[in-house]
Amino acid sequence: MAPLVFVTGGARSGKSTFARRRCEEHGAPLLYVATATIEDDEMACRVERHRQERGDAWRTLEEPLELARRLPPAVGDARAVLIDCLTLWLSNQFFACREQAPPVLARTEELLEVLLALPVPVYLVSNEVGSGIVPDNRLARLFRDLAGEVNQMFAARAHQAWLLASGLPLRLK
Amino acid sequence: MAPLVFVTGGARSGKSTFARRRCEEHGAPLLYVATATIEDDEMACRVERHRQERGDAWRTLEEPLELARRLPPAVGDARAVLIDCLTLWLSNQFFACREQAPPVLARTEELLEVLLALPVPVYLVSNEVGSGIVPDNRLARLFRDLAGEVNQMFAARAHQAWLLASGLPLRLK
Amino acid sequence: MAPLVFVTGGARSGKSTFARRRCEEHGAPLLYVATATIEDDEMACRVERHRQERGDAWRTLEEPLELARRLPPAVGDARAVLIDCLTLWLSNQFFACREQAPPVLARTEELLEVLLALPVPVYLVSNEVGSGIVPDNRLARLFRDLAGEVNQMFAARAHQAWLLASGLPLRLK
Repeated sequence: MAPLVFVTGGARSGKSTFARRRCEEHGAPLLYVATATIEDDEMACRVERHRQERGDAWRTLEEPLELARRLPPAVGDARAVLIDCLTLWLSNQFFACREQAPPVLARTEELLEVLLALPVPVYLVSNEVGSGIVPDNRLARLFRDLAGEVNQMFAARAHQAWLLASGLPLRLK
Repeated sequence: MAPLVFVTGGARSGKSTFARRRCEEHGAPLLYVATATIEDDEMACRVERHRQERGDAWRTLEEPLELARRLPPAVGDARAVLIDCLTLWLSNQFFACREQAPPVLARTEELLEVLLALPVPVYLVSNEVGSGIVPDNRLARLFRDLAGEVNQMFAARAHQAWLLASGLPLRLK
Repeated sequence: MAPLVFVTGGARSGKSTFARRRCEEHGAPLLYVATATIEDDEMACRVERHRQERGDAWRTLEEPLELARRLPPAVGDARAVLIDCLTLWLSNQFFACREQAPPVLARTEELLEVLLALPVPVYLVSNEVGSGIVPDNRLARLFRDLAGEVNQMFAARAHQAWLLASGLPLRLK
């Protein structure tokens, strides 16, 4: 069974860079899975800059929602997969499911099984969103709880788990 | 002296589950201390579901404020106590004391001494609330500072301290 | 080369106390660098109380912005320097630079080089601000990203890095 490596941390804590470097140790070709949706020019510039930084070893799959269906056929000859990030995918599902937790959790379990069945190592970047003050906003509280539960689900089944802080890794598992 | 075990982490980081499992290693009967106030049906359902998940080994004490007074006589034959959670209790005190830090800190010190004097192991769940952006709201900033200070007070006197992230424990002490 | 020690954590996580104690191991005299601006009486009281807590071993330099220029001549015979804190300095720069990231990052790089060239150990306190829910406010998101990037820059070059939680240290590096 190919390993699932879970990498979490706060905003700009160095999660993606850490996961990318680990992934690159498997050698080319590699598959980068972007879950962000591009909504403005600033975002488009940032995505393009990141693509150039990754370089020729990487192919890119952009998919905000249908990872469970689109990821397996996209692996091809890739030696490892980097998914960046789970929390954005979850946020996309949360809005697509009209902020209802049960269908989002069902899709999350489906994705987890798909990732565990992939024949190559998967590096999964996620976000810590639950260590600030309780949000005033009910939807923000719902999403925060959901993101925490989903992080637990993936970290429990992952073969390795890391917490990043200020760009430096702490091994959770 | 029976140990005080401090367990902290963000929202839905797996703190309560970790603390409950540790507590259950002491064998039945066990005492669960809930500090939440039940304000709506959704909350009532969640509390009831948690009670069923805990099972027959557990008795429950529900007390939002008067822990220092009500906890010692409630221990009885319990082999260990789980308090879930300190931050909700602190929030209840904060509003009961009209958002004044000094009386809240006095009650916190009183509670700490009571917990340290209990004849059985105490597992105390708390929350990290200070790792987000500085809140706009003055009361939220006050509470955030208070919660951080109180976490330091308890962790300093605890015999063990753990930080949970994505359901996985890091040993602080 | 004198060491740079990076100390981060959430609000009231015990960062400053940890850094101060470490700094005091170098013996007197010591230099405390405050980056906060005093905007009201409450703040003035708090600053004065902290000054008294630090005691006679410490001299104080108050400088919200011009650290790179004012710090080197202020070191004098100090055996070590404590800067409290980088995130407030960054926030001051962020507003002085009209919320534009590039000039702030240029000043940050300048400060990092100045700190690494100081002839005495430097203890640098910073803040984790990126582990809460994504802020609604655009400026708050910008600052949160900037603070995360800057923490990575300093932690990458530091000789030691620590993450504080509930007053207890985790070694990052």
